Amino acid sequence: MTAAITLLTDFGERDGFVAAMKGIMATTAPRAPLHDAGHGIPPGDVRTAMFALGRYWRLYPRSTVHLVVVDPGVGTLRRALALEADGRFVVAPDNGLVTQVLLEASQWQAVALPPGAAGGGASRTFHGRDVFAPAAASLALGRALSDLGEPLPDPIRLRLAEPSRDEAGNVLGEVVTLDRFGNLITNVPGSWLPPGCPVRIEDRVVPSGLTYAVVEEGDAVAVVNSDGFLEIAIRGGSASERLGMGIGSRVRVLAGQDGV
Amino acid sequence: MTAAITLLTDFGERDGFVAAMKGIMATTAPRAPLHDAGHGIPPGDVRTAMFALGRYWRLYPRSTVHLVVVDPGVGTLRRALALEADGRFVVAPDNGLVTQVLLEASQWQAVALPPGAAGGGASRTFHGRDVFAPAAASLALGRALSDLGEPLPDPIRLRLAEPSRDEAGNVLGEVVTLDRFGNLITNVPGSWLPPGCPVRIEDRVVPSGLTYAVVEEGDAVAVVNSDGFLEIAIRGGSASERLGMGIGSRVRVLAGQDGV
Amino acid sequence: MTAAITLLTDFGERDGFVAAMKGIMATTAPRAPLHDAGHGIPPGDVRTAMFALGRYWRLYPRSTVHLVVVDPGVGTLRRALALEADGRFVVAPDNGLVTQVLLEASQWQAVALPPGAAGGGASRTFHGRDVFAPAAASLALGRALSDLGEPLPDPIRLRLAEPSRDEAGNVLGEVVTLDRFGNLITNVPGSWLPPGCPVRIEDRVVPSGLTYAVVEEGDAVAVVNSDGFLEIAIRGGSASERLGMGIGSRVRVLAGQDGV
Repeated sequence: MTAAITLLTDFGERDGFVAAMKGIMATTAPRAPLHDAGHGIPPGDVRTAMFALGRYWRLYPRSTVHLVVVDPGVGTLRRALALEADGRFVVAPDNGLVTQVLLEASQWQAVALPPGAAGGGASRTFHGRDVFAPAAASLALGRALSDLGEPLPDPIRLRLAEPSRDEAGNVLGEVVTLDRFGNLITNVPGSWLPPGCPVRIEDRVVPSGLTYAVVEEGDAVAVVNSDGFLEIAIRGGSASERLGMGIGSRVRVLAGQDGV
Repeated sequence: MTAAITLLTDFGERDGFVAAMKGIMATTAPRAPLHDAGHGIPPGDVRTAMFALGRYWRLYPRSTVHLVVVDPGVGTLRRALALEADGRFVVAPDNGLVTQVLLEASQWQAVALPPGAAGGGASRTFHGRDVFAPAAASLALGRALSDLGEPLPDPIRLRLAEPSRDEAGNVLGEVVTLDRFGNLITNVPGSWLPPGCPVRIEDRVVPSGLTYAVVEEGDAVAVVNSDGFLEIAIRGGSASERLGMGIGSRVRVLAGQDGV
Repeated sequence: MTAAITLLTDFGERDGFVAAMKGIMATTAPRAPLHDAGHGIPPGDVRTAMFALGRYWRLYPRSTVHLVVVDPGVGTLRRALALEADGRFVVAPDNGLVTQVLLEASQWQAVALPPGAAGGGASRTFHGRDVFAPAAASLALGRALSDLGEPLPDPIRLRLAEPSRDEAGNVLGEVVTLDRFGNLITNVPGSWLPPGCPVRIEDRVVPSGLTYAVVEEGDAVAVVNSDGFLEIAIRGGSASERLGMGIGSRVRVLAGQDGV
């Protein structure tokens, strides 16, 4: 059985760019199931795509090929890569998209895709069609990673703010991404949090709970989300909009205290 | 052949949540075709999702599994359900999403999915991945509905306004949902309408016709839509925007008259 | 193997209209892979859909069926068509959606789908479900084009502005479509352009280059895009928004000169 290929892009739903990639893959690997992971990444937003990929790459079975094209650097000297991580593959521009995968994988290896992987005539503006889709189809058909290019030992990693503890044991972190619902997702692992502590985000104090439902509709709450990280949400609304906060907003949890 | 699974959610196209569900299902039921029904339900809008599901659940063949996750009550005590209706399955939170299916089905039965359906470690914020996707995959593989949980005899139903007739035979109804085009969809069945009657929506009178095309570009028209209900549309535009109306706007049809 | 069917519409992601079509096709042709090409065409925007289809129809293998439903004239006397072009099929309303396909195909033939293709009870407002999806499924199963209707020798073609050269050899063209990124796509073929010429769009002069990356972030550049046409882009931004230009904006390239 040909492996499934997932597609995550910032190409949107109106221009046929996604279908151009699918057509290439349907020609080469007609039996590969194609699964859309979403094409609504904000244009050029590598960070959002990186977190999105982090939510699903490992939930797919081994041999799955994850094609991710958010490529603001197309046409520059940025490299293109194919990666094998714990048995799954990722094909993407080398711009940090795989940061989360590299953090989570027990083992990985990567190769650099030559610009002419498509067979010579790669465009300068659409490597999704001309470089990445052909590579993804090859991997879905079982071609060896090492056949696709020379080893690439140092894929680019996004630098993300790291959480820390101060001398008093307080946890300091920040918002690193948002989701569609406007939830503010931080870099603080749930395992760092004593249960029940209130959380300060900028100058607001928010109660914490096991679920959104511990507060009333419209109120803010801090939860450990489904990825295992501290998240500030508004029940039934957008925390980003209502609190006026976003990426970079600072978070502080006072360990072992009832207040902040 | 493994049955197809359709997916309808409010997860959007940018966060990887949909692909997390797909990854779970691709692992358990790798041969199940996955069909996106759409992931642009407005956040938490159970009513819009209920009407959407009503448009397709029965058009799929028997054994199809319809996975619907619009789940503003995740983490509360709301129940989770799997439903068999006229040979198709629906897996969803028990918050009214299946109202239309229950109305239309000749026969149905439902079970309550235990919170730990995923195998113990269900998150408190993402039952789509941890509860609903595993249940959908099981059903697609042919597992019996009764294996998934205890009978749930009383799924929650949304209360929707009912159309009525007054003593003079006039039909009274209201707008119950909108679609992407801004069409105002009412609860008045087409079979209640004498042909050719004008329709009053709030204080405006709109001519009726068999199709949008009986009026000029930019004009309003009342038609019986493809679901069999009275709908007020603007040819080539959004009736919702141009008339300033929406859910709850009142509609009146004078039976047997040429005017309203 | 049943042929794949691609779907391109303006139905959006929230109403279940797309899944209604998929359900019809899953019933008739359950083994046909269904590939979404996108459902975010602006409502009724035949031109955008025509360009989108032009980007992928030929990249799919022979026998693929491309279903395209952007149908502002549903319910009028507009015809419905099925088309075979270089071995691929297109099923669509006859409103110009296939203009680009007809231009590019070496050979084609078309038939008119009867309004009752669905078996009599076609709605007046949703031919996607009642006419086009059944026809697409039939073609995917291998039914002959000529079985679906009478020959339609003259599909409607959109009139698009043609580029020209003036007596001095300057190239004159205009913006004919935009993409999601706000790139301004013109009707000037790349083969008409001497390399390195600056391009004037309305009253602005823009340098040209092989790729977006020849200019700084935020600056405008003219490139030959992945479809082979002159395009004006802003690196890392939307040219449409920042230049305040759109469809119809005039473009001029001075042949054989260093300036404009």
